[in-house]
Amino acid sequence: MSVVDLARFMDDLASESGQAILPFFRAAFGIDDKGHGGTFDPVTEADRAAEVILRGLIRRSFPTHGILGEEFGSENLDAECVWVLDPIDGTRAFMAGLPTWGTLIGLARNGVPVRGLMHQPYLGERFSGDGATARLRSARGERILRTRRGTDLRHALLATTDPRLFGDGSEREGFAALESAVRLSRYGTDCYAYCMLAAGQIDLVVEAGLKPYDIVALIPIIEGAGGVVTTWDGGSAAGGGRIVAAADEALHAEALRLLNP
Amino acid sequence: MSVVDLARFMDDLASESGQAILPFFRAAFGIDDKGHGGTFDPVTEADRAAEVILRGLIRRSFPTHGILGEEFGSENLDAECVWVLDPIDGTRAFMAGLPTWGTLIGLARNGVPVRGLMHQPYLGERFSGDGATARLRSARGERILRTRRGTDLRHALLATTDPRLFGDGSEREGFAALESAVRLSRYGTDCYAYCMLAAGQIDLVVEAGLKPYDIVALIPIIEGAGGVVTTWDGGSAAGGGRIVAAADEALHAEALRLLNP
Repeated sequence: MSVVDLARFMDDLASESGQAILPFFRAAFGIDDKGHGGTFDPVTEADRAAEVILRGLIRRSFPTHGILGEEFGSENLDAECVWVLDPIDGTRAFMAGLPTWGTLIGLARNGVPVRGLMHQPYLGERFSGDGATARLRSARGERILRTRRGTDLRHALLATTDPRLFGDGSEREGFAALESAVRLSRYGTDCYAYCMLAAGQIDLVVEAGLKPYDIVALIPIIEGAGGVVTTWDGGSAAGGGRIVAAADEALHAEALRLLNP
Repeated sequence: MSVVDLARFMDDLASESGQAILPFFRAAFGIDDKGHGGTFDPVTEADRAAEVILRGLIRRSFPTHGILGEEFGSENLDAECVWVLDPIDGTRAFMAGLPTWGTLIGLARNGVPVRGLMHQPYLGERFSGDGATARLRSARGERILRTRRGTDLRHALLATTDPRLFGDGSEREGFAALESAVRLSRYGTDCYAYCMLAAGQIDLVVEAGLKPYDIVALIPIIEGAGGVVTTWDGGSAAGGGRIVAAADEALHAEALRLLNP
């Protein structure tokens, strides 16, 4: 399959899943608490309906590929190409009616994220990247995404989904050290924050406890826009865990230093 | 001026201010730190440009009315009718590129908020209310807003802009008590949370340190949708301060009880 065909296929995935999800947004819908480990993890009918559609389309077009999804687990992860899916990243935002959730569609080759798409169907925004370039497409047109380079840490805008994500003492201390060094921080951001980092609006995104499907699709977007994303110890972000994304290398290095005192 | 004409005038205010603001959203723009009291309070060129336009339109159509705005202070507050304006509520969201900020346009008569409009020009959403009804208008059509009544506290969804808003010990303790009693909480919401409460998506919104221009426009929307909004001690919310909004009376009473231990 050509690069163009692959991009078109990913757009089809976004369109079809978006159509499955949108009727549930800001409407009465059933919520099911998975209840793993006592943490609240809402799952909507929309999440499941969309993942069923995504998996069906992928199996039909790429029967040899693997799939890792939030709702229905993994299949064929030893394949060269593995799709990594989160139909609704930001379920709390979704439940609250806030348009900052997104559908994450990532493709990894030999374990390396190579293409990613974040689709916000209510806004009609598609953020995509291939590690070398990144762009935003919407009804307002198309825009190449570039991070905001050269911002000092003390002028930086930091985002995280929820400060309660930082579970143990060292995580909390590391985040607090970084937060006190930046100009301001913003909570409640989910996948949208990484796309705004790619767009040059946010300088740092820091999270903990992420799953691969929370981050794989975003890596080619961040890197394609000139940003850096790793774990807090500087390793590959593709496995999830503690994640730090930065607009440039210098800011990334400063963030790592403060997060690991 | 008839009710219809007044509604049309408020829509004009929204349209004109939206046109002034949108070119600055997700674009490079100057940020000016007001620096009052050491807290960071970003002001954008967009904020100022929009308030100049709003004040000009009001002065031209209603020269006897008073105006209270975030950027340029107050004039003629002894008038029977006073407009209460916040061109960009949620400046951090705006700076971060997140579409959850809004333009707040409120009208108070003899100190009582009687009409309110929250305009999100990037999304093209207009939430409006007159204390008896509330509605959302967008390109997707028009929808009457009703709060979600009858939700138990333990099933409630709570929103606040930033838990760091709660400044002293008793504020923090009150909020923590309420937060631990609800099903889940969501941060980073600004004016959008009150509109989602009116829309039946969020059950409780709690904040502290609000100014009148942060809340006056939202009161007729919340009440028009069937919700309740007061200060933490049950008084009028029109003066700002510590605010609690609830989807119904029972939830409001429970929230007051926990916020004031």
